[in-house]
Amino acid sequence: MKALVKESAGPGFKLKDVPKPTIRDDEVLIHVRRAGVCGTDVHIYEWDDWAKGRCRPPFVVGHEFAGDVAQVGALVANVQVGDRVTAEGHIVDGTCLLCRTGSAHVCPHTRIIGVDRDGCFAEYIAMPATNVWHLDANISYEVGGIHDPMGNAFHTALTADIPGATVLVTGCGPIGIFAVGICKAAGASRIIASDVNPRRLELATAMGAHDAVHPSDAEAAVKRATDDYGVDVVLEMSGVPSAIHQALALVRVGGRVQMLGIPSKPIEIDFASEVIFKGITIYGVVGRRMYETWHQMTRFLRSGKFDPTAVITHRFPLECADEAMRVIKSGEAGKVVFEIA
Amino acid sequence: MKALVKESAGPGFKLKDVPKPTIRDDEVLIHVRRAGVCGTDVHIYEWDDWAKGRCRPPFVVGHEFAGDVAQVGALVANVQVGDRVTAEGHIVDGTCLLCRTGSAHVCPHTRIIGVDRDGCFAEYIAMPATNVWHLDANISYEVGGIHDPMGNAFHTALTADIPGATVLVTGCGPIGIFAVGICKAAGASRIIASDVNPRRLELATAMGAHDAVHPSDAEAAVKRATDDYGVDVVLEMSGVPSAIHQALALVRVGGRVQMLGIPSKPIEIDFASEVIFKGITIYGVVGRRMYETWHQMTRFLRSGKFDPTAVITHRFPLECADEAMRVIKSGEAGKVVFEIA
Amino acid sequence: MKALVKESAGPGFKLKDVPKPTIRDDEVLIHVRRAGVCGTDVHIYEWDDWAKGRCRPPFVVGHEFAGDVAQVGALVANVQVGDRVTAEGHIVDGTCLLCRTGSAHVCPHTRIIGVDRDGCFAEYIAMPATNVWHLDANISYEVGGIHDPMGNAFHTALTADIPGATVLVTGCGPIGIFAVGICKAAGASRIIASDVNPRRLELATAMGAHDAVHPSDAEAAVKRATDDYGVDVVLEMSGVPSAIHQALALVRVGGRVQMLGIPSKPIEIDFASEVIFKGITIYGVVGRRMYETWHQMTRFLRSGKFDPTAVITHRFPLECADEAMRVIKSGEAGKVVFEIA
Amino acid sequence: MKALVKESAGPGFKLKDVPKPTIRDDEVLIHVRRAGVCGTDVHIYEWDDWAKGRCRPPFVVGHEFAGDVAQVGALVANVQVGDRVTAEGHIVDGTCLLCRTGSAHVCPHTRIIGVDRDGCFAEYIAMPATNVWHLDANISYEVGGIHDPMGNAFHTALTADIPGATVLVTGCGPIGIFAVGICKAAGASRIIASDVNPRRLELATAMGAHDAVHPSDAEAAVKRATDDYGVDVVLEMSGVPSAIHQALALVRVGGRVQMLGIPSKPIEIDFASEVIFKGITIYGVVGRRMYETWHQMTRFLRSGKFDPTAVITHRFPLECADEAMRVIKSGEAGKVVFEIA
Repeated sequence: MKALVKESAGPGFKLKDVPKPTIRDDEVLIHVRRAGVCGTDVHIYEWDDWAKGRCRPPFVVGHEFAGDVAQVGALVANVQVGDRVTAEGHIVDGTCLLCRTGSAHVCPHTRIIGVDRDGCFAEYIAMPATNVWHLDANISYEVGGIHDPMGNAFHTALTADIPGATVLVTGCGPIGIFAVGICKAAGASRIIASDVNPRRLELATAMGAHDAVHPSDAEAAVKRATDDYGVDVVLEMSGVPSAIHQALALVRVGGRVQMLGIPSKPIEIDFASEVIFKGITIYGVVGRRMYETWHQMTRFLRSGKFDPTAVITHRFPLECADEAMRVIKSGEAGKVVFEIA
Repeated sequence: MKALVKESAGPGFKLKDVPKPTIRDDEVLIHVRRAGVCGTDVHIYEWDDWAKGRCRPPFVVGHEFAGDVAQVGALVANVQVGDRVTAEGHIVDGTCLLCRTGSAHVCPHTRIIGVDRDGCFAEYIAMPATNVWHLDANISYEVGGIHDPMGNAFHTALTADIPGATVLVTGCGPIGIFAVGICKAAGASRIIASDVNPRRLELATAMGAHDAVHPSDAEAAVKRATDDYGVDVVLEMSGVPSAIHQALALVRVGGRVQMLGIPSKPIEIDFASEVIFKGITIYGVVGRRMYETWHQMTRFLRSGKFDPTAVITHRFPLECADEAMRVIKSGEAGKVVFEIA
Repeated sequence: MKALVKESAGPGFKLKDVPKPTIRDDEVLIHVRRAGVCGTDVHIYEWDDWAKGRCRPPFVVGHEFAGDVAQVGALVANVQVGDRVTAEGHIVDGTCLLCRTGSAHVCPHTRIIGVDRDGCFAEYIAMPATNVWHLDANISYEVGGIHDPMGNAFHTALTADIPGATVLVTGCGPIGIFAVGICKAAGASRIIASDVNPRRLELATAMGAHDAVHPSDAEAAVKRATDDYGVDVVLEMSGVPSAIHQALALVRVGGRVQMLGIPSKPIEIDFASEVIFKGITIYGVVGRRMYETWHQMTRFLRSGKFDPTAVITHRFPLECADEAMRVIKSGEAGKVVFEIA
Repeated sequence: MKALVKESAGPGFKLKDVPKPTIRDDEVLIHVRRAGVCGTDVHIYEWDDWAKGRCRPPFVVGHEFAGDVAQVGALVANVQVGDRVTAEGHIVDGTCLLCRTGSAHVCPHTRIIGVDRDGCFAEYIAMPATNVWHLDANISYEVGGIHDPMGNAFHTALTADIPGATVLVTGCGPIGIFAVGICKAAGASRIIASDVNPRRLELATAMGAHDAVHPSDAEAAVKRATDDYGVDVVLEMSGVPSAIHQALALVRVGGRVQMLGIPSKPIEIDFASEVIFKGITIYGVVGRRMYETWHQMTRFLRSGKFDPTAVITHRFPLECADEAMRVIKSGEAGKVVFEIA
């Protein structure tokens, strides 16, 4: 089958023919239709320091996808051939303390498809049946193909108390923009989105932000919207040091900061004034709650109150992987999707 | 001043002149503009068993209102003459264990205006400054005048986890209809409202119910919308025994039933099959959280995502109190409001 | 192998030779050492209405046990031959909405060992590997053999907020007595236990109850200990109608009633005065949280702060099943255990 | 009356005669019997950068105390002359959004006695009646006099989920040691305390720590006690940068870090590896929850499961203020108390 492969330690991907995966008795084989492209893929493509430390080529890249089931293992009871599905890309052990007590999303033995084992930028992928999530009939493969990053956004937003809340979203990449839409659907009373990129602010506005501002205007926007108290909740989706300081400065006393954006290096924090004296809570977001987050996604999509389609700005065949990487790096893209089959 | 008074033990109200209230140093005098009429007022008007057991005439009736501040006591710091306000009608001691640990709404020494002391169906009312809640500039006195029952609905809905939830609202009196609109604004994925009264089902639909059905059709509607699981949350707003049984039957295992409707007499419950084996949680709703609920109301109104105006179907001067009671008892009314000054 | 069997629709058990179970690839075979005897076993023995409606003889009885692993299926990774283990007796589908969102304890497709399929009053039992729970080296098979009912008690107690709380435990059968000890270890400030049986009150006192009283004295004990407020938490472990009314009467306003005891028939409840006006929360307890409850048990046992041994009053070989049933029915027993191998 | 006064901008306190305070109608006058000495008092005594930025001499120092009520204002209903009391030293406005929605502990208008207005190292102090907390008859003035720092410890410990938890307490000053005792009473399964000071580790052991270790041994102790997972909860009570990094390193994935210790300057944090990828929650602790924390304290003291007396190592009259400061700075003291009347 055709697959986008990280062949060796160095920049680039290669589209090539590889053997179709075989499945274990508790796995299913999925015919991939659409696959989302993520910043993580760009890191692997560029072969940056994180990629060098984590990945072991060769492997098929890609961790966000939807498709239909082509084959099921002998022990699989809840998935049938022909089912339209997406899947959780974090493969956990299922038996450790974390997995058995409701925190599988932080299983210490997590292996991620497209990072630690073969991924989904290919015609077929083998997945444990436990990781499969069914799509409603009216959900497109395209929307199915971006459930992983949407799930990051749902996890980030809905582990805070959103109905009625004032919310600041710092960073309007695709996940930040999804988060704007989720907060809108969940009854946030005021959503302020900040980013340096005007194109992204337009998308944030389209998804429901009341204010979409350059970071230099965020403080004024927050103070105006909150009688100077600061927002109840900040969703930090950028990983940019100045945005993290702004998150801590603009959350109200006693508020909550959800951190998803990954800073590339250490940051100097004044815990006294930025965290402790403010009495705030900070929550580090890893992946998606298994599978509360997936269930929430299905519910929001089913209700029609949340539709991520506007965030998808570019669609490519696997053959155009280099161009896909380019548009993401350029900042001109919202969400980018591979159309595979 | 003019006031609607419960003069003696027996049916009816009397509109008469009474002295304008005087205030203590920690109280404010409020010029009443609009006042909501509640089922509780009907009980007092009719002088039913509950009223006989609880009320001690003579007293001014009415507990839901908005107006502007005419006078403030010497110790009052947070309210000024001219402020547009509504108020929490439950006057609590502020010093008991419950009041000091976040549960003032169940203070055992609660005294309710218009029930235990003089109320708001009058040109003026004296209120402790701590009970006053300011209205945003764009909120009408009319909407301000129904914050008390809206608050019941907010308390009932938002102490459950609504974003993404499937919700059944049993009973579409004004509070039930408000609750439909709140759940809609807070991101419920599916709202099923049930009532025997077609007029009320129309209002529920107008406020956002996906299904508005006769109770005899509720089971089918719930099963269809939930793959037979039952709903995540039931808001029981009727107090009708058959509705309570239906609430317990149609909530999913592990779900939550919020009980606000007051049954007039004991009901036979099979705790084994209706509660314990289902693993559900039941929450008895009293009044409004002080003042989390009030804050949520302000936020929802401010966002524009919730507007109760459509629920107000009748407006009367105090002179038409008998007619106001009649339309409520007839079931033809949504929310009824007195226009006072 | 030797097994205690419910042979046919009618009273009694029969000790007989049956084939040793075979296991599937995802199951393990456990050599049973100790097995707890439960009220449920008595219902099956007596063949009461519940048993007639639920059970389909013939089957091996018993659902609480510990032992060591004799054989593991090909797909089992987290259990080895020789491991000392106990197991969750509720076998759930693992794939339904409830199982996938943290509520497997209320999986609608639950099958219980010793009730819906062969149980543990036998030399060997086959169990899904996912249901196995490892015992610390210093935990005896006997204590391991009563993890199921201890788990009911942990689930009931620790889904309330116990540190500092005043707690009333209505009903001091083994699970109620366990709950007393758990509340003691978790920092309850005052524990009042009630039962009609003086022997059980002695055990409750031994496990840490500050007051152990006849139900007719419970109201006075609660009022004395709580400045008349009522207790923060009631653990209703009896299923007796008068105890349920007492639970609702003696919990403070805004408090929490955890219901585990199963009433045998419907009860008349005045929701207005007993639930709604009190603003309380009622929680129906099913089984054990999978596997948060098991993890809590291990932690409490490991700390040495909770030791259930004193509650075990009788030990029998399988040959004395009739006597075991007798001592339970007589009320003279705390927890009864079969010593099997 | 006699009072310990910060007279001017510069080091030291001065014991002198000052006028007895007068009270407002909503205040009470308290005859101070015992007063705890806090690190904050040392900062003011030393006149460090924080003190220079915050305090405006002259004022009476001290914010932890107990005594009996000498006089009550005309509007005070819940306090009587002769009552044995302590008091919350954070005086909040009571009317802001935070105060009205259950977060008075982070009221932006908080004024602290002994810091922002006259304090308790004096024979008398005036306090708002709302800040007064009654002492049980069997609680000494001495224990009453340290409710403020005990409350910090209760707030820090009990806003985490302690029953059954493994806990690391980094920093064994008086508040850290109190926290050890609270976790013990609340059913923590394993408590590891770390400090560089052997005298403090002895006190931690006396209060119930299972392991009391030098910070260089903390990692090994945690790994041994938690099967390498890390602890469920860290209570960071030191403010020392290396301890904060250790807190983040030794909490398990998905765990919780409660931060009370105040670092004196910014710290470099790798949010990616220390917070986000670990999926942890960080909570900044300010003061005491009003008045949930006070209620918990009363309950724990009443139960007899927590007794802070062993932590009090030195007692002085006000005349020995310099010596009191010296023993605190030397590290030889646990908690130090002034005996005033």
